[in-house]
Amino acid sequence: MEIVVQKFGGTSVADAEKIRRAAKRVIETAERGFGVVVVASARGKQTDQLVADALELNPNPPKREMDQLLSTGEQQSVSLFAMALDAMGHEAISLTGGQIRMVTDSVHTKARIKSIGAERIHEHLAQGKIVIVAGFQGIDENENITTLGRGGSDTTAVALAATLGARCCEIYTDVNGIYSADPRVFKGAVKLDQICYDEMLELASFGASVMHPRAIECGKKYDVEIHVRSSGEDTEGTIITHEVPQMEGVVVSGATIQRDLAKIGLVGVDNSPGNAARIFAHLAKAKVVVNDIIQTEISADKANLSFMIEISDLAAAKEAVDQIKGEVNCDSVFVRDDIAEVSVVGVGMRSHYGVAEKMFNALAEARVNIDSITTSEIRISCAVDEDEAEKALEAVCVVFELDKSAVQRS
Amino acid sequence: MEIVVQKFGGTSVADAEKIRRAAKRVIETAERGFGVVVVASARGKQTDQLVADALELNPNPPKREMDQLLSTGEQQSVSLFAMALDAMGHEAISLTGGQIRMVTDSVHTKARIKSIGAERIHEHLAQGKIVIVAGFQGIDENENITTLGRGGSDTTAVALAATLGARCCEIYTDVNGIYSADPRVFKGAVKLDQICYDEMLELASFGASVMHPRAIECGKKYDVEIHVRSSGEDTEGTIITHEVPQMEGVVVSGATIQRDLAKIGLVGVDNSPGNAARIFAHLAKAKVVVNDIIQTEISADKANLSFMIEISDLAAAKEAVDQIKGEVNCDSVFVRDDIAEVSVVGVGMRSHYGVAEKMFNALAEARVNIDSITTSEIRISCAVDEDEAEKALEAVCVVFELDKSAVQRS
Repeated sequence: MEIVVQKFGGTSVADAEKIRRAAKRVIETAERGFGVVVVASARGKQTDQLVADALELNPNPPKREMDQLLSTGEQQSVSLFAMALDAMGHEAISLTGGQIRMVTDSVHTKARIKSIGAERIHEHLAQGKIVIVAGFQGIDENENITTLGRGGSDTTAVALAATLGARCCEIYTDVNGIYSADPRVFKGAVKLDQICYDEMLELASFGASVMHPRAIECGKKYDVEIHVRSSGEDTEGTIITHEVPQMEGVVVSGATIQRDLAKIGLVGVDNSPGNAARIFAHLAKAKVVVNDIIQTEISADKANLSFMIEISDLAAAKEAVDQIKGEVNCDSVFVRDDIAEVSVVGVGMRSHYGVAEKMFNALAEARVNIDSITTSEIRISCAVDEDEAEKALEAVCVVFELDKSAVQRS
Repeated sequence: MEIVVQKFGGTSVADAEKIRRAAKRVIETAERGFGVVVVASARGKQTDQLVADALELNPNPPKREMDQLLSTGEQQSVSLFAMALDAMGHEAISLTGGQIRMVTDSVHTKARIKSIGAERIHEHLAQGKIVIVAGFQGIDENENITTLGRGGSDTTAVALAATLGARCCEIYTDVNGIYSADPRVFKGAVKLDQICYDEMLELASFGASVMHPRAIECGKKYDVEIHVRSSGEDTEGTIITHEVPQMEGVVVSGATIQRDLAKIGLVGVDNSPGNAARIFAHLAKAKVVVNDIIQTEISADKANLSFMIEISDLAAAKEAVDQIKGEVNCDSVFVRDDIAEVSVVGVGMRSHYGVAEKMFNALAEARVNIDSITTSEIRISCAVDEDEAEKALEAVCVVFELDKSAVQRS
């Protein structure tokens, strides 16, 4: 029997009516002859409510206890999902992370999966049951409940699909696929029929919030075909899959805006060995995640150093920099908290020339000033003034024809 | 280190303020040098809400899934309780039924405990932690979550106290102990300092709702001292313990009213071997729990048969009796749905004469008609008209001096 994993997020199981709608879709798949494994998140705002309950008792709750608390949200939705299927005449069984032996490390609130026990799921499927697995949660080797952090249910679904050798992993969500750009900003954005893992990873890491990078990484590692589609409409969504030759023909698959960034610059740092390491070790100690480091020499013994951070880390980062700046003989520090990054992504960049030039020209014509530029093999990102980010995205979308499907482009 | 088990019911952990109050009490006990194991129920109306959520999806939800769903209520309250203790500066750890290996049979929604793993609790206590255990829940041998049914958290607490060799099991509740009668009916009722298991079992089975009989049975079996006391006031409550000689000096310890009863009578049943068995087997098949069976011969070959049931079972019982009445040649069937039972309980009855006579006289003087009488070695129960039950209870309380403490009685 071929297996399909179907993942429903919190909004897709928010109330009885939505659970029934999701259950109906699951039954349709089962009736087409597939073994169906459902992964469900906590209902709608349940997690927020539990977090509020916790904070009322403890402003800094122990992470182990947060996991013990928050994992109940998924446990509730999977048992309710199983009840809905039962009421519709289909045998079903709900299983927690512990019950499928989803063993993780012990890093509470952001655990990583070590192994998954597939036997129990196979047994239930063989008995004709639909299996509903609680997303987001696991257990460590001492039976402590752990959670996988942001995007955890997607990761559960993709990892399960890999373990079970599923035909594909369907991610049901409130949009009907991955778009070439955010349609709220660029009206002409088109839904992509398919995209490869590396492109999706770059899009997700640089502002596309449909899926969490961890789940995509997992899909890439185990070659799981991921189908992102709408829980409300019965349309084909976007397939995230391994790279196939014809994808190279498309230069740019998508464009994103990443907002809420800040930039810190250290001007005139002593350019002696180990100084950069010293600065970033100090930032790491302050638990600040740093991106897009740029260092430029300004004289024989002095350099400028800048990096981007999420704005929520700005206070901690500023404090860390102020502590270290004397040690590295920094002349001055500047901070920009009005930064956004506009990125274009496409595996076709590997084999096409002039992509960067085309992007910079488009921004110049739109009179958007570029603060800094970073690139990967399949991505070009420009930091711009946050107020100009939408104008920049539109300009980029037009020049790379992101309002046309891949086959229509010139 | 001596261990104390402290159980807090749903109203005692209903909100943040109440959880903090309970946590304060737990810390006081820990600071007196005890190892404290807390058992907590689901917060306030959580269970009712989850049941409503389930019924919205399925009028007859699978019991396994109900257990999976409802057990989240206790899991939430224990993790929140641990967070509260942490915020007050005490190390604490919450554990689910699965995490302490509370293994039960697989009778979902009313499972029975088979074994409890004590090692993990002892380890945490040895590390100076307060251990918070989710009441009401266990797991079966296949890791399915089970629940223990009504009074389940009390049973968890008493069984844990037995397994851990605890000094006592404190049941915190919204009353401050066991009373000689319900103070809402008999104003003069006094709090009992102590009561033996057998008396408490009879009181609980015949209308006193403070504790569930199963938990008391467990306490009796393993000789666990149970202390029923108030979660709001810092007063001594009632100790439920094994029988000691001086208890025999008190003829009647307490009196109860059991309401919501019905009586069914079968008049003129053929008095041939196996007829009674046939009737009650048929009622058992209809899942009706029958009490107080009375059979009286009315002629050489005819008998009258009556029994009591809970009024919620009346429709099912009536249907079952109507199906069987032809088979046993029953002349007619009568039903009374306005019945209550007034009971007096006391181990002293074993060694005192005239207790029944005293009760019947008191009822006669109060002009209460007795419908039927049943007794055990330490209990006398009279079925009366429900409207007269309170008057009957008062009369009985006065004659047995239930407004005086044991030592004050004549």
